[in-house]
Amino acid sequence: MALTPKLQALIESLRRLPGVGPKTAQRMALHLLERDRDAALMISESLAAAARDIGECQQCHSLSETEVCDICQHPGRDRSTLCVLESPIDLMVIEQTGGFSGLYFVLGGHLSPIDGIGPEELGIDQLLARLDQGEVRELVLATNPTVEGEATAHYIAEQLGDLDIKVSRIAHGVPVGGELEFVDGGTLAHALAGRRLMERGQ
Amino acid sequence: MALTPKLQALIESLRRLPGVGPKTAQRMALHLLERDRDAALMISESLAAAARDIGECQQCHSLSETEVCDICQHPGRDRSTLCVLESPIDLMVIEQTGGFSGLYFVLGGHLSPIDGIGPEELGIDQLLARLDQGEVRELVLATNPTVEGEATAHYIAEQLGDLDIKVSRIAHGVPVGGELEFVDGGTLAHALAGRRLMERGQ
Repeated sequence: MALTPKLQALIESLRRLPGVGPKTAQRMALHLLERDRDAALMISESLAAAARDIGECQQCHSLSETEVCDICQHPGRDRSTLCVLESPIDLMVIEQTGGFSGLYFVLGGHLSPIDGIGPEELGIDQLLARLDQGEVRELVLATNPTVEGEATAHYIAEQLGDLDIKVSRIAHGVPVGGELEFVDGGTLAHALAGRRLMERGQ
Repeated sequence: MALTPKLQALIESLRRLPGVGPKTAQRMALHLLERDRDAALMISESLAAAARDIGECQQCHSLSETEVCDICQHPGRDRSTLCVLESPIDLMVIEQTGGFSGLYFVLGGHLSPIDGIGPEELGIDQLLARLDQGEVRELVLATNPTVEGEATAHYIAEQLGDLDIKVSRIAHGVPVGGELEFVDGGTLAHALAGRRLMERGQ
């Protein structure tokens, strides 16, 4: 016998969250109902508001509550550098590092002919049209370091033709704070091939 | 720069779920907004409905949408056996085993004088009043096998005085499917002390 139909419905719906299985959903539902009803209402309202009001920025295709997002509108951003990403979560992660002051262009995925995702689905035409306007001087290709991400980066680089734009790819190498012992072979090979001269002091 | 204020609010609220930290909340929020808006609305609605309509059963103190829950009302349950639990989630877990057909009484916690939780807070007066009515023949104490759960079970057993009611405690022992090697010493000692004769065949 289940507890109540509405609790059952809540548990079913929480299972739609990524990484949440039946046991976790059950624990979350009972925690909210037994100990934290404020949080239940807060999550309910913030989800409804976000789903209702968050759309896509017309310029960078990231998530935005306005037609053009805050980053694209910001007068302090360097408009000559454009960073190409697969998804808004990558944008968020890069913004959190504080190490990039240019603008972004979010593809919303990577080339994947088998799933019917070609250049049009990723908005690459729109990206090329923007580059044609001449404001962008450097294009930073920051798609994921996966086979599909690399293929997408190479495809975009090839489309630039004789446009006078610097194209770069984020560096592959060993993660900061990691130990060589635990780094996979492919990454280590990239890190060696991409080695850089050090300052020798004096 | 954060993505949008409503996304930020959503991430903050998702962090109130048990076991969800900042990274997971971020991943959940972006997954819902980018790939599964249906789920976002479904979770929002089921949370609001559950928080609004699920209350406490007046008889067993478990979660219920009606004044008396389906289990307490069910004509097929054995009304002579009452199982005492710490929380509705324990009730749910026992119901899922299908091995118990009696009724329940949910304490909502365990005795914890340091947090100001005494017999009144757990509704033990109400439990004793119910036992006085004479319908219950066996009381199964299924509080958690922790120090506090044991203390609560013992306290309840002591309060019964000369009431003619069988009192039992759920068995301690090795978990089914586990390996002795990985069972803690306390559990193993209980399992040995509580050993039972086997049928010898023939």
